Amino acid sequence: MTFFNSRWCDVPEGVEEFNPATLAPGFRAGAVHCGLKGSGETDVGLLTCDSEGVSSAVLLTRNAAAAAPVRVCRDHCDLGSIRAVAVNSGNANAATGEQGIRDALAMRDAAAEVLGIPDEAVAVAETGVIGVPLATEAVVAGVKSAAKVLSADGGEDFCRAIMTTDQGPKQVTLEVGGVTVSAQAKGAGMIEPGFATMLCFVQTDAQIDDPDSELRRAVARSFERITVDGQMSTNDTVVLQATGSSGRAMPEGVLDAVLLQLALEVVADGEGAERAGRIQVNGAADQGEAERVARAIANSPLVKTALTGRDANWGRIAQAAGMALAGEEWNEPGPHSIDFAELGDATAEAEIAIALGRGYASAHVFFSDLTHEYIRINAEYTT
Amino acid sequence: MTFFNSRWCDVPEGVEEFNPATLAPGFRAGAVHCGLKGSGETDVGLLTCDSEGVSSAVLLTRNAAAAAPVRVCRDHCDLGSIRAVAVNSGNANAATGEQGIRDALAMRDAAAEVLGIPDEAVAVAETGVIGVPLATEAVVAGVKSAAKVLSADGGEDFCRAIMTTDQGPKQVTLEVGGVTVSAQAKGAGMIEPGFATMLCFVQTDAQIDDPDSELRRAVARSFERITVDGQMSTNDTVVLQATGSSGRAMPEGVLDAVLLQLALEVVADGEGAERAGRIQVNGAADQGEAERVARAIANSPLVKTALTGRDANWGRIAQAAGMALAGEEWNEPGPHSIDFAELGDATAEAEIAIALGRGYASAHVFFSDLTHEYIRINAEYTT
Repeated sequence: MTFFNSRWCDVPEGVEEFNPATLAPGFRAGAVHCGLKGSGETDVGLLTCDSEGVSSAVLLTRNAAAAAPVRVCRDHCDLGSIRAVAVNSGNANAATGEQGIRDALAMRDAAAEVLGIPDEAVAVAETGVIGVPLATEAVVAGVKSAAKVLSADGGEDFCRAIMTTDQGPKQVTLEVGGVTVSAQAKGAGMIEPGFATMLCFVQTDAQIDDPDSELRRAVARSFERITVDGQMSTNDTVVLQATGSSGRAMPEGVLDAVLLQLALEVVADGEGAERAGRIQVNGAADQGEAERVARAIANSPLVKTALTGRDANWGRIAQAAGMALAGEEWNEPGPHSIDFAELGDATAEAEIAIALGRGYASAHVFFSDLTHEYIRINAEYTT
Repeated sequence: MTFFNSRWCDVPEGVEEFNPATLAPGFRAGAVHCGLKGSGETDVGLLTCDSEGVSSAVLLTRNAAAAAPVRVCRDHCDLGSIRAVAVNSGNANAATGEQGIRDALAMRDAAAEVLGIPDEAVAVAETGVIGVPLATEAVVAGVKSAAKVLSADGGEDFCRAIMTTDQGPKQVTLEVGGVTVSAQAKGAGMIEPGFATMLCFVQTDAQIDDPDSELRRAVARSFERITVDGQMSTNDTVVLQATGSSGRAMPEGVLDAVLLQLALEVVADGEGAERAGRIQVNGAADQGEAERVARAIANSPLVKTALTGRDANWGRIAQAAGMALAGEEWNEPGPHSIDFAELGDATAEAEIAIALGRGYASAHVFFSDLTHEYIRINAEYTT
C-alpha cells in the first residue's frame, strides 16, 4: 500500500492497490510528445472509454478568466456523457480569446473524429503557460498520434502527459468491493510561469447513479479544501467517468478517499513546498465564518513561513483569524484556544487548530508552506 | 526636498521642508531605552502637546484580535481630545488577555501622571512581538524617563522609538500656507516574528474643525490603499493632533500628501521589498468589485513575484482578476485590456492597469513585491 500515505486520509477498508498504469476496465489511454514541452517529454494525452453507456461528471474552475478548454467543456460538451478526454500540458490556452476557443474545439473535434464518437462526448483540458496561442496543428497531430497508442495500461503515460513541474505522477489504481477505480492528477506546478492548475481524471467500472452529485461531494471534501498559494486557476478541471460494467456500486468513502489523497499530494507537491499543514477551525458562528477564518490562516504568508521555519508562532494564527473576523466582537484569543504545537514540529504534516468560541460551526483547510523555492520558481524565471 | 520622493505622491504647492526632528509648534517628544529591545535602541517614546485646546482623531485596526493598546484607546480614551501618546516597540501587547489591558492602562496612566493631564487624554500604541506579557514595570519607568527628555526637537527620537525592522525613520516636518505639520510613522517590520504593524502620528498647529473626518479621508487615500503581505495587523494606529495655534486652516491636500508619502514609504520598506507596484483597476461594475479585483492582484504571490522577477506576466494579472470575479460572466481578458509593461521594467515603482470592461468604477492599491528576504525574515527566525 503506497498510495494512501497521508495521516489525513482514511484508507477505505478492503482496498487492494494495483499498478497505476493499468486503467479501470473499459478505459484506454495513450500519450505522445507533440512539441509543446521543450524537454521532449509527453505533452498530449488521450483517454477514452470503450463503452457507450458511460456516465460522467465534470467540474470546472469558477475563475471568471476561465481558459478556452474550460469554456469549451462548459458550453459545447455533454458533461453527463463524456466518453473521452483530450489533454495537453505546456500551454494552458488561457486568455487566448476567440482563437483559443477555436483551438480547443479543434483539439476536441480531432479526438472525436479519430475515436469515431460525437464531438460533444469529448472533454478537453489544458495546463501550462497562459496568454500564448496554442500550437494547434501540433496538438491536433498529437491527439491523432496518441489515438494510435491507446492502451489499457496507458494510465501512467496519460498522467505524465499532464505533468508540468510536478515532482512525479499523482495516480492510483485500486480494487475494492468488486469495483476498480483508476485516477490521475496533476498540480500545483507549471511548465512556465503562469499559475498552478490542478487537473484530475477518475475512471471506474462502478455503477454511479448520480455522478455529478457524487463528484461534487468528493471534490468539496478534497480539492476544495486545499490551498498552495490561494490562487484559483483558470484551468482547474475534474472529470469522473463510470461505466457501471462491474454491476456494483462504488463502496462508500472510496471516491472521497481517492480524491483526498490526490489533493493532499498536490499540497505536498505545491511549488517549493517542504511541509503541509491542516488548520481546523472550531467554534465559529456559522459555516461561512469557519471557512473564512480557515482560509485566512491557510493563506497567510506569515503562518506559511512559520510552518517552513518550524516556528510554533500562535500569534500569527490569532492575527489571521482576527483579520478574517475584522469588525466583529471577539474575545481575545490566547494560546489556550489555539493548538499550535505541531507548527514547530518536524512532522511533514502538521495539525493546527483554533477554537473561536463563537458558535458551533467548523471547517478545515490543508495548505502548503511558503519557501525560498516558491520565490525562486515564481520570481527568477522571466517569460 | 527629500520627503516627497514617490512618483505617486503630488507635492503640495509652496511646501517647505524642515529638519524632521523639529515638531510642529506646541509639541514635544522624547524617547528612551527601557529594555524591550535587546539591541539597546530606544523602545519607549512619549509625545505631548502643551496646549489644552488640542483636537484630535485616532484611527485603529479593525482586526478582531486587536491588541490591548488598541482596546484601551477604543474603550478608555477620549479620542477627540488626545494630548499625549505613549508608545513602545519590542512588544505589541497583543493576545495578552486581561493582563494586557491592565498593562496598557498602566502605561497610559503613568504618562498621564507624569505629564499632569487626565488619563483619558493619553493614547497608547505598541508594536513588536505578540502573545508575550509586557514588561510593564520597565515600560512605566521608561515613560517616566522619557518625560524628562521631552523636547521640541524630539521628533526623530520619538520616530526611532517606534521602529522595529524599519530600515530607517519615516518622518517629516514641513511648513505650508502658514501652518506646520510634523509626522512620524513606522512599518512594516517587526522586532521578532509577529506581523507587520503600521503606526503613524501627525502633529500640526493648523486649525482642523473635524479632525476625525479629515483623518478618515486622508487614511482612506493612503494607509488603506497599501498592502505588503495582505495581513491586517492587531496594532495599527494613526493619531492626528491639531492645536489650531497658527490660526490657519490646513491647506487642501497637505494631510493627504503627507500620509500618502508615509504610506508609500511603508510599502517601499515592506519586509524584504525590492520594488513597489501600483495596480489601477478601471471599468469595474461597482466600487466593491473594483476594490476586490485590485486587492486580489496586489496580494497575489504570483503577481508579487513577477514584480520581483521583472516579468511582464500579464496572465498572472488576468488570473487574479478572474479569481476575484469568480462565478461572474466576464469577457476573456487579453493584453489589450492590461497595461503591464512596467511590471518588467527596472523602475522601482511600477504602474500596472487593467480595464475590466464591466462598468465605470475604479480603484487602485499600492503593493510591495515578494522576495527571498521576506521568506528569510519570516521563516528563518524561530521564537
